[in-house]
Amino acid sequence: MNPETPNITRWKCLCAYDGAPFDGWQSQRGGRAIQDVIEARLKEIFGRLIRIHASGRTDAGVHARGQVFHFDAAWKHGPEKLRAALRGGLPWQIQIKSVRAVTADFHSRFSAKGKLYLYYLHLGDADPFTRPYAWVIERVQPLDIEAMKKGAAILRGKHDFRAFSALNGPPREDTVRDLRRLEITRRGARVRIAAEADGFMYKMVRSLVGALVTVGEGKLAPDGLRELLETGKRTISVQTAPPQGLFLEKVFY
Amino acid sequence: MNPETPNITRWKCLCAYDGAPFDGWQSQRGGRAIQDVIEARLKEIFGRLIRIHASGRTDAGVHARGQVFHFDAAWKHGPEKLRAALRGGLPWQIQIKSVRAVTADFHSRFSAKGKLYLYYLHLGDADPFTRPYAWVIERVQPLDIEAMKKGAAILRGKHDFRAFSALNGPPREDTVRDLRRLEITRRGARVRIAAEADGFMYKMVRSLVGALVTVGEGKLAPDGLRELLETGKRTISVQTAPPQGLFLEKVFY
Repeated sequence: MNPETPNITRWKCLCAYDGAPFDGWQSQRGGRAIQDVIEARLKEIFGRLIRIHASGRTDAGVHARGQVFHFDAAWKHGPEKLRAALRGGLPWQIQIKSVRAVTADFHSRFSAKGKLYLYYLHLGDADPFTRPYAWVIERVQPLDIEAMKKGAAILRGKHDFRAFSALNGPPREDTVRDLRRLEITRRGARVRIAAEADGFMYKMVRSLVGALVTVGEGKLAPDGLRELLETGKRTISVQTAPPQGLFLEKVFY
Repeated sequence: MNPETPNITRWKCLCAYDGAPFDGWQSQRGGRAIQDVIEARLKEIFGRLIRIHASGRTDAGVHARGQVFHFDAAWKHGPEKLRAALRGGLPWQIQIKSVRAVTADFHSRFSAKGKLYLYYLHLGDADPFTRPYAWVIERVQPLDIEAMKKGAAILRGKHDFRAFSALNGPPREDTVRDLRRLEITRRGARVRIAAEADGFMYKMVRSLVGALVTVGEGKLAPDGLRELLETGKRTISVQTAPPQGLFLEKVFY
């Protein structure tokens, strides 16, 4: 509650979305970003533009099970009714999982202590219920999962991840991140890569996954990942994994 | 191999599809039935109309993990190349899982000894990855799963299922089916209903599921299902469950 605007509350919202039908999180000309769709609904409810602030943007095609955003608005009817009002006018591909009032010092992005992403690979032919939610790798030569696990052990920890970012040109921003968890688990044809860090750069998870798959293909030794960390130079070994395998699972506060 | 047309082989195909973007299995004016899409691809491969014959039609919105169809065509390059040719030109929502040559006495529909369908309910709020593949039941009062299991025990076995068909008017066709399995399993918010029989009538699985949900809601006692079997009269207790929860899982030969 802000003492200068006593009616205004900060609302923290947890949401899930299927990224396929949208142009990513961040507002776009044309209005088919997830942010645009939610802000359009808020405008219907409150009669004016209300900006929402997410923990971070997700790219076109990336999914979320635990994205967090906040906004400030005067609403007297409690969080459950606000959630119902929001849900009522949103496409089913966006789910508002919870709404709660928070103090004005909470910020979805700046208060975040870390994030967990999950990425799914599917090895071999995939049915239509898997394809929209995984990177389907159909090649005959199976991926070497043990080599990928060795690679993950090299990448884990606090490093300069510049080589796994989409950055070009001279160093400008801080590219050191603490990759607290990078875990590969296989169950049958399904491989899950869990990545948790204090923060991720633009396309960093998809670049880590792409490099690990290059290792799994035998085109890069696990030790090659150490070289990428040390030189900070992105090479063609760092392919960008396709977006539909990626889920923003949880934001930690 | 037909001795009169020595070049013609009968091909048995196993396929999976997401029912959402199509107008059901059976050929439609406008051509957005699954049958139309596959026949259009066969026409591209063989240069002429080739009719396909499925184990049975599925309604608009119903999914399949194990639909079977067959067709007759002259093809010299073996089943794997035929499968690749078919797959190459189909939308990803239709997967050709296998192709094999069978004898001319095989018929997808008439040779079938039984079918297994799975139906998924989701209790409570559902995320966007569940909604397209389940009947989401959000009401506050939870379903009485034990009552539904009692109801399933009454429905199992060989009965006249006329009350669970879409038939109107005087009895004309045989409406006795052997429901060998009707099994309800719950895991958290997810309820799975497995139905296996020697055959199913039009909308029969969705009618069985709808009636079981009516029982779960407490609007019909399990014994009410016995009465439906005995009178053969469909009542409002027999709602038709929505198509997106239903999967044709397997056809037995």
